[in-house]
Amino acid sequence: MSEKQFTIAVDAMGGDFAPEEIVAGALMARDKYENIKIQLFGQTEKVKPLVTNDQRIEIIEAPEVIEMGEEPVKAIRRKKESSLVLAANAVKEGTADALFSAGNTGALLAASIFIVGRIPGVKRPALLTVLPSIKNPKRPWVLMDVGANAESKPTYLYQFGILADFYSRKMVGVEKPEVKLLNNGAEEDKGDQVHIAAHQLLKNSDLNFQGNIEARELLDGSADVVVADGFSGNAALKSIEGTALNIFGALSDTIKNGGLRTKLGGLLVKPALKKFASVLDYNNAGGAVILGVNAPVVKTHGSAKRLAVSNTIGQIREMLETNIVGEVKAYVENNDATFNPPVGENEE
Amino acid sequence: MSEKQFTIAVDAMGGDFAPEEIVAGALMARDKYENIKIQLFGQTEKVKPLVTNDQRIEIIEAPEVIEMGEEPVKAIRRKKESSLVLAANAVKEGTADALFSAGNTGALLAASIFIVGRIPGVKRPALLTVLPSIKNPKRPWVLMDVGANAESKPTYLYQFGILADFYSRKMVGVEKPEVKLLNNGAEEDKGDQVHIAAHQLLKNSDLNFQGNIEARELLDGSADVVVADGFSGNAALKSIEGTALNIFGALSDTIKNGGLRTKLGGLLVKPALKKFASVLDYNNAGGAVILGVNAPVVKTHGSAKRLAVSNTIGQIREMLETNIVGEVKAYVENNDATFNPPVGENEE
Repeated sequence: MSEKQFTIAVDAMGGDFAPEEIVAGALMARDKYENIKIQLFGQTEKVKPLVTNDQRIEIIEAPEVIEMGEEPVKAIRRKKESSLVLAANAVKEGTADALFSAGNTGALLAASIFIVGRIPGVKRPALLTVLPSIKNPKRPWVLMDVGANAESKPTYLYQFGILADFYSRKMVGVEKPEVKLLNNGAEEDKGDQVHIAAHQLLKNSDLNFQGNIEARELLDGSADVVVADGFSGNAALKSIEGTALNIFGALSDTIKNGGLRTKLGGLLVKPALKKFASVLDYNNAGGAVILGVNAPVVKTHGSAKRLAVSNTIGQIREMLETNIVGEVKAYVENNDATFNPPVGENEE
Repeated sequence: MSEKQFTIAVDAMGGDFAPEEIVAGALMARDKYENIKIQLFGQTEKVKPLVTNDQRIEIIEAPEVIEMGEEPVKAIRRKKESSLVLAANAVKEGTADALFSAGNTGALLAASIFIVGRIPGVKRPALLTVLPSIKNPKRPWVLMDVGANAESKPTYLYQFGILADFYSRKMVGVEKPEVKLLNNGAEEDKGDQVHIAAHQLLKNSDLNFQGNIEARELLDGSADVVVADGFSGNAALKSIEGTALNIFGALSDTIKNGGLRTKLGGLLVKPALKKFASVLDYNNAGGAVILGVNAPVVKTHGSAKRLAVSNTIGQIREMLETNIVGEVKAYVENNDATFNPPVGENEE
């Protein structure tokens, strides 16, 4: 077989339904993709009984577990024998090629930066996610940063633009991604000082920068890449999720609690609604990528079940096949003057 | 008649459907509320033909119009004879009690601050809006700031909490509003420096502060007042609006373009859907309030039609009847040490 083999380190203990659903998802992915090997990091006595077939599966004992509420940096420093830290170490040491977790996002971020390691020249690794466009279902788009960095500087946002542009080209398959900046108005002088300066950096870059986008237009499908500071990017993403979940929940309640007429109607529209809801479904969307570190690291949501886990592992495999991290590294190394433009005294 | 009479200055030329829908809405409000007088500021030759009955209506000539795209501060400085500036002047001079506009938000904000005037002691007037809670339809909640201030300091956020608490008590009728801070995590050390410091100020205040709220929970109805910096508050509000509009639009397309079965079902569920959609309808929600200035100033959305205009004028009348601005002024005057707590050197 000429296909390249990849090893993916899986934090089997992170997530609301760990280890059961994580392991089941890992096995699904193993069955689906012939060229991956999976390392399951976790408490062997819990993980082993779940592995019904150990082909291309390795179980690596990790006695400790980082919980959802733990302070990230402390957690990875103290729990050296945790599934997350050991999985990150495997990536650092090169025995695995990429890292998957459904656990504590902050801890995964800390492990990515402090263990897997920041790509030299990248100021701040950040979280990228792929979102659907409702008006234009054939145009998924990427949003970066969705919450890795609470404080932002213009150069961080500028670098997010370049990193997310790579993702859009290599992973979403957009030839020349339209890049926009999430801001509170269309004009280039809108926003706070950080966004005004970031706008200028993006405008003067080689990116196909198309100006600001307001949060209201995010789902319209008018951009391939949306650059955001981590604080408002997080607010926008979570507002979208919360609104969609609330509306679908209320809609189904309305139909369920309605009169006979409404119930019958609900039954008839159900297949159409289901098809539509799947556009917004997490389980199809894959995970949030930590971009700017030395290997693919992808986080799926805490409540992920096996299908979401398997799809996210598929996404990681694709990141390995396209060698996106390698290409980012080569770009950053060879384009330092562009990637790290000179900035004012208050900037980094 | 013992009821107090109020005069409301209406910018008849602002908004996508001005002056027709603005004037029609003003006449509706005049018919509905006996104790209001309306001053219509605008181009007389356009406004007068629309006034079919001039009872409690005064038309005041304003030859200039501030357009939607104009730079706000420049616009109000240059267009002294515009409908907005003259209406704001009437409030400043006391010939009107409150100001309504559906036009350029930035210009209305500038007119509010520079003409109507900031309440002494209030650092930054800001925009407040009332939003529905989908999970808990009986619990509308207020969000402040939704975009007046792109740059924020902890003390601004703290003051927004106090101002919005007044609004929740006086206008929404909540006895002891639960106040939360929009932040990117639940723990008190989450967020950037501004939000970490604002959290402490709110926590140590007399408000019924209940900690942080994440954007995903906004529509759950778990707070009466949500304090936000203007940048991420704007991103959250617009993400909610955009998502709701996109989902309803796509839903109705799905039903319209579906097969016979889906179409029939759609027909049957329609009344239930309509009832539900009305919870999120702008036209029922009223306008965004500029709080922190010397009189009630309310902005309704640019695409407002007569019903939304009339409802917003009703909201202004209620602000006048409850004397919320007078009470805020008295509070700020008598509680300077609380309202303007001592802060560090980097603070205002």
